[in-house]
Formats: sequence, C-alpha cells, structure tokens
Amino acid sequence: MANPLRIGIAGLGTVGAGVVRILQTHGDDIARRAGKPIAITAINAKDKKKKRDIDISKYKWVDDPLAIADAKDVDVVVELIGGEDGTAKELVERALKNKKHVVTANKALLARHGLALAKLAEDNNVSLNFEASVAGGIPIIKALREGFAGNRIEALFGILNGTCNYILSEMRTSGRDFVAVLKEAQKKGYAEADPSFDVDGIDAAHKLTILSALAFGVKPDFDAIDITGIRRITAKDIAFAGELGYRIKLLGITRRIGGKIAQSLEPCLVPIDSALGSVEGVFNAVFVEGDFIDRAMLEGRGAGQGPTASAVMADLVDLARGYHLPAFGLPSRELGNSKWASTEDIISSQYIHLIVSDQPGVIADVSAILRDFGISIETMIQRGRDPNQPVSVVITTHECSLKDIRGATAKIAALSTVAEPPTVLRIETF
Amino acid sequence: MANPLRIGIAGLGTVGAGVVRILQTHGDDIARRAGKPIAITAINAKDKKKKRDIDISKYKWVDDPLAIADAKDVDVVVELIGGEDGTAKELVERALKNKKHVVTANKALLARHGLALAKLAEDNNVSLNFEASVAGGIPIIKALREGFAGNRIEALFGILNGTCNYILSEMRTSGRDFVAVLKEAQKKGYAEADPSFDVDGIDAAHKLTILSALAFGVKPDFDAIDITGIRRITAKDIAFAGELGYRIKLLGITRRIGGKIAQSLEPCLVPIDSALGSVEGVFNAVFVEGDFIDRAMLEGRGAGQGPTASAVMADLVDLARGYHLPAFGLPSRELGNSKWASTEDIISSQYIHLIVSDQPGVIADVSAILRDFGISIETMIQRGRDPNQPVSVVITTHECSLKDIRGATAKIAALSTVAEPPTVLRIETF
Repeated sequence: MANPLRIGIAGLGTVGAGVVRILQTHGDDIARRAGKPIAITAINAKDKKKKRDIDISKYKWVDDPLAIADAKDVDVVVELIGGEDGTAKELVERALKNKKHVVTANKALLARHGLALAKLAEDNNVSLNFEASVAGGIPIIKALREGFAGNRIEALFGILNGTCNYILSEMRTSGRDFVAVLKEAQKKGYAEADPSFDVDGIDAAHKLTILSALAFGVKPDFDAIDITGIRRITAKDIAFAGELGYRIKLLGITRRIGGKIAQSLEPCLVPIDSALGSVEGVFNAVFVEGDFIDRAMLEGRGAGQGPTASAVMADLVDLARGYHLPAFGLPSRELGNSKWASTEDIISSQYIHLIVSDQPGVIADVSAILRDFGISIETMIQRGRDPNQPVSVVITTHECSLKDIRGATAKIAALSTVAEPPTVLRIETF
Repeated sequence: MANPLRIGIAGLGTVGAGVVRILQTHGDDIARRAGKPIAITAINAKDKKKKRDIDISKYKWVDDPLAIADAKDVDVVVELIGGEDGTAKELVERALKNKKHVVTANKALLARHGLALAKLAEDNNVSLNFEASVAGGIPIIKALREGFAGNRIEALFGILNGTCNYILSEMRTSGRDFVAVLKEAQKKGYAEADPSFDVDGIDAAHKLTILSALAFGVKPDFDAIDITGIRRITAKDIAFAGELGYRIKLLGITRRIGGKIAQSLEPCLVPIDSALGSVEGVFNAVFVEGDFIDRAMLEGRGAGQGPTASAVMADLVDLARGYHLPAFGLPSRELGNSKWASTEDIISSQYIHLIVSDQPGVIADVSAILRDFGISIETMIQRGRDPNQPVSVVITTHECSLKDIRGATAKIAALSTVAEPPTVLRIETF
C-alpha cells in the first residue's frame, strides 16, 4: 500500500480526541477507502497529562503546537485549537507557508481570515479544508463546493447552532422562558458557561459567512451579516407562533436580491410542516435553493465529538485520495466582491408582538400606523382582557419591506399605550 | 485556462437535454469552478430532428452512439441512454476499454453490472461516476463515498422513487385509492404509461442496490433485495396508519443485522413526525446512520431534468478537477462478499390489516394465533359494525420477527372469517 498520509493534530479537546478515536477504530477501513493509511505523526494539546478516554501514548507528543507546522514528517496539520486569532491562526499560516495542507474546524478563523488563508494555501499549492467548521456531520461544504457545482445558488437557509435550536425547542415543549431553559442547557452541557457566543448568534454567523462565500463564490465577509440572537424570544412568542402554524428558528439566511446578496442571522418564523420547521433539538439543517436542483436539504448533528470528527476525517480522506481544490471552490482571485444588500431591501411577511395597555383605541392606533406605511394586516390575535395590566397583541402582516416595518414599529413603540419595545420577527416560507 | 474536458453525450432525453442546458447556462461559471471548461465534442440521440427546446446545432452530431466511445476528441462518455443491457451497456464497456471516463445516470445498468463495470474502469485506470443514478439532486453518492468515509455505516433508509411517494401522498390527502391516483399521476407525467417499473419497486431497488454497496463496501447485488411495491396499499391503510400516527412510505432499507446485511424494498409505516415521515410528494430522501455521524438526512428532488442533470454535472466537475476514485469507494477487489441476511431475521413492530366477517369470536381467534407465535398486540382498531359485510380490523404489534409474523398471518389468512389476504407492513422508527 502507498505511503501514509502523515497528520499532526494540534488540540485534543472533544473534536481532536474524536479524530484520534476514529483512526483507532476504523484505521484499516479508512486506509482501504483512501488508498493509503492516515498516520498520526505528531500531537499536541495544552496539557499532556490530562486524563483522556483515548490512549495517546503511542503518538509523538510535541510541546509547542507551532512545531507541528515545521515537522518534516507531517503532511497535514489538523488545527483543532480554535479561536479566530492567536495560536490557531499562527499555526495555520505557518503550516500553509511550509507547504503543508491544513484541515480545520475553526469557523471563527475562516469567517475572519478565510480569504487571506485561502490565498496563502493557493500560493503554496496546498489545500485548506474545513468541512468540520459548519454543521458537523452534515457534508454541506462538499455539497456546495462539489455536489451543487452545476447550479447558480439562489438562496441558502440554515439552522446552524444546535444550542439555540435546543433552547428554542425546549422553550416550546416546556412552555418555559429563555433564562430557565438556558440554565438547564448549561447544566446538561448543551450551552457554555458564557453562552453569548451561541445565543447572540455569533457562532451561527461565522458559519453563515463560510456558507455564503461557497454558495455565491464571493469573498467571505462576516461583517456584512446582520446578527440578532435569541435572547428576546419569549415562551409567549413561541406559543403565538405555534398557534399561527409556525415555529421560531434561529436562521442564517443568505440570498440574492437583485444583483446583491443579503446575509442575515436572526430568529424567524417558519411553517411547522416545512423542511426546517421540523428540525428540532440539537440538530442542524441547511436548505439550499439552486436553479437546477430546485431545492435540497441536508440535516444532521451539528456538533459533538463524533459528527465533527467525522467531518475532519472526510477532509483527510479527500487529501489522502489526492483531491485538492481551492478552499472556497474557486481560486481566491476569482471570488467576487459581493454587493451586500441592506436587509432593509428584504420583502417578507412579519410577526409583531406588542405588549399594550388593554384600553379602547390601541388597536385602532396600531392599525392606522401600519396603514400609513402601506402594510396590510393578515391576522391579529389579542388574548386576555385585563384593564389593570398589559396584554399581548400579535399581528402578522402581508409582505412588506423591512424598511417599512422598522418605520412602523418605531412609531408603534412610541405610543403611550405600548408598554415594551415590540418584538418583530420575519416570517420565512419555503 | 487549461485545456477543456471534452465530453460526448449519448442520449438527449430529459436528462441529456438538461446537461446541455446547464453548460449553455453556466458554462463560464463551471469552467471557473472546475479549473477548465467542459466542452461538448460529440452528441447523439435516437432522432436528430426531434424538436428540442435546446439548440444542439453547434455540437458535432454522431449517428452511432458507440462512435462516441471511439472518438479521439472525447475524454468522458456521458451515457444517458438507459436500460440495463443493450446499447447503454455496450457503450459504457467500450468507453471504459478505450480508457475514457464514464458518467452515467443508469441505475439499472449499475445495479446489474456495477461490479464488472467498476472493475473494467479500474483495469483501464479511468473513472465511472454515477451521482445521477440515485436520488437526482441529492448528493448522496458523494456523501457515502466521501463525506461519511470516516464512519461504519449501520443502516440506510431511503425514499427513492418519487412516483411512488407522490402516489402515496396523493392517496393520503385525497382519500382516493391507488388506481385512481395512478391514473392521475400518469396524466400529469409523474408516472409512465407502464408504471410497473416504479410502482412495483424495481426502480427503487436498483437505487438501493447501489447505495447498499456504497454504504457497506460490498459488491452490489440486486438479487439480494426483497421487493414489494405499493399496489396493494389502499386508502384505508393510509387512513388507519394516519390514525395511529404513521405515514406509509415505500422504503428502501439496508442495514447490518449481526454479521449480515439485510436489504429490503417495501412499503413501511414511519412516524409522521420522523425525518422520513414528513417527506411528501415527488421528493426523495435518504436517512443514514453511522457510528460517528449518528444520523444524517439528505432530501431533495429525486428526478426531473434539472436535479438529475445537476448530478451529472457534479460528476463532470469532479473529473475536470482531476478527482478520481473507485466507483464504489473501494477498489472492486476489496468490495466484500456480503452475507445477506434473510429478511425473516428482521425484528420490528408490524401493522396488520384484516378484512373479516363481523361476527363474534373473530378477534379471539386472531389474538390466539398471535399469542401462539409469541406476538403481543400493541393496538387494535375495529371500525364499523355490519353483520352483512366484511369490516376492517387493524392491529399493530410489539416487536417480533418477520418469520413469526409471516407464520401467524398465514394461519390468520386461513380462518374462514378472514375475507382477504391480510396486509402486513413493517413499522420503522428512527
């Protein structure tokens, strides 16, 4: 059999340990599939002595992760340290400069520095692969870069953060509010002690940046994404959405609008029986519209040791099979300078949740403001009657521009009868 | 830019015309993605003069499809003639022998002769690609051969025939029976004049043969699939299934049972809210269980010009990018001789629909037979009371072996009070 593909792994957290585990479990099968063995010739992590449930005694330990990028007996550097700067970035850059392929799960690094790193890989004639950076066990990078290569992609919608989807699913089934469910998710290990990276949408936006670049052949641009997390979603919103036939999902959306591309990451209402509406718990899913495939969806586990390590392994098998292609599917010089659309240009139906004093005339005032902005009401629900405390009014609109809805809700928020800033969510249908 | 990848297309039906259309629409983008243009240097179809909605005047027409396999200016033969033998087979063999790559959508050919053709391709150091042969726009071949390469696949469940899924969906929503819905599907062009290839499960079984070989690294073996189509499913079955929380889907299933693999193609009950339960109409979907990914699902259009041609194009882009790997993901000599399990070894819950005379003692007789086979009843529904005509009794069982359920239902069928052969369907949960 051919000489092994020699890999050096930097980072032995959940994913790194998973990669070792896959090779220990399926090394022989993978060698048959790849045409050559994949051999670990260097490993590194913060703490050599940390108790691990995998045996790493037979691998060569290196104390400095950057040494992996210099090692003569390493063909591929597997970067599983994480973080958009610091050691991870230094390691990846040094590996590429040393003409070593890089496989990484680091979405933050790619969202921020993807273009420069893709160029660096090309200049050194090596590959930069990152299937594990988005949606774990779902081969969505491969699908966009290869499987759908005959299409002009029109839009991509993704549930890209399992923590948020778990929290929203739990809020729905238990009727509890965000804070309570978040606490439970933290106890179960589904959410970090500092949850902001997940619940404020940053993690999902990193992933969307990568998917958007792949889908449209444009330079990745994290800063061009409008990001809203899920903190303001209440159990009441979820219940009202359910009553109206929708589920609330944190959606990453990137789509063509005229000659531009609009990227957004925010909680939206989607029909319960739609492809994404039925994706519950920690699962991720990506829905793609292309001019020849029409529509396709990929669903699976977005995180966790097995799925993410499986994605790293897919990248390694590609390299062992001698398959190399540009990081974002096109040579970096050909990635377009996208014109990013303002999300204000997006046209859609909207869900508005108002907390109002229950007194005559409120609905008339609200309706008049919407009318003045040319927004027509599709449904209105008012539950509970209590002159002594605020009640919920929920309105769904027919299609209108985000600009109009923002104008209208600003005026509505200023009404003396409206108790809190309105919650406004897009309704996305597929 | 590099020299073009020169392709010869044999067959200009729906899919062939679609391939031409993609190249005419996105030729420049595809060249940028693939690193070289994809150029049509020969085309052939039955009738040159047939009215087509694509312009083929600029391509070199050849009268004999086999001439494409001999043409000096063809690197890849795109076989879109169809059929498991005859010209299609002759063309593919000749192309491979002439050291030309082959891209085909021909599932029947691959299900019957896949192993021999894979070997022929290897012997001649060329590629045999067939993403378009299964599930159209869904990149499931690529997912199994590449994306999930780090996994031991445990099971695969697929909705692989859009015609059948459309008919079953329509029967459910309209309450009409098989024959009426089939007629309508034929009118709409969703079913062939001779529908047996689809509704008897042959087409889906061809696809399952290919997926099973890829999933488990075994030789494709169409004859090892137990096939049952959907002709015997009635509107009543679908309604009863719905009442019990299930949908009826024609499922291709291949899974490990002990050291063996069980392949089957038959209508099954699946939970309404499961990943496959919500796949409706002409859509296809494949659900995969692997030891590291856990579970993943891919869904999309399984047929039609755009999706199938898109899959052909993905294979061509892979070739243009210089990516070559064995047809079934492993060198053909390493494909295992699977031990095929008898479907009798499968353990699952069952749905039994009996048409019985409505007289005292029937249920007692049926229950006693089930008890004698060690089968316990989970639910029983009897609707309607009419001593003058047969009524439906529907039973779902707890888990039992197919062997026992067959033994029991044979005895039940022999009861004088049972009017028709019972309908027995597996219940599959995910």
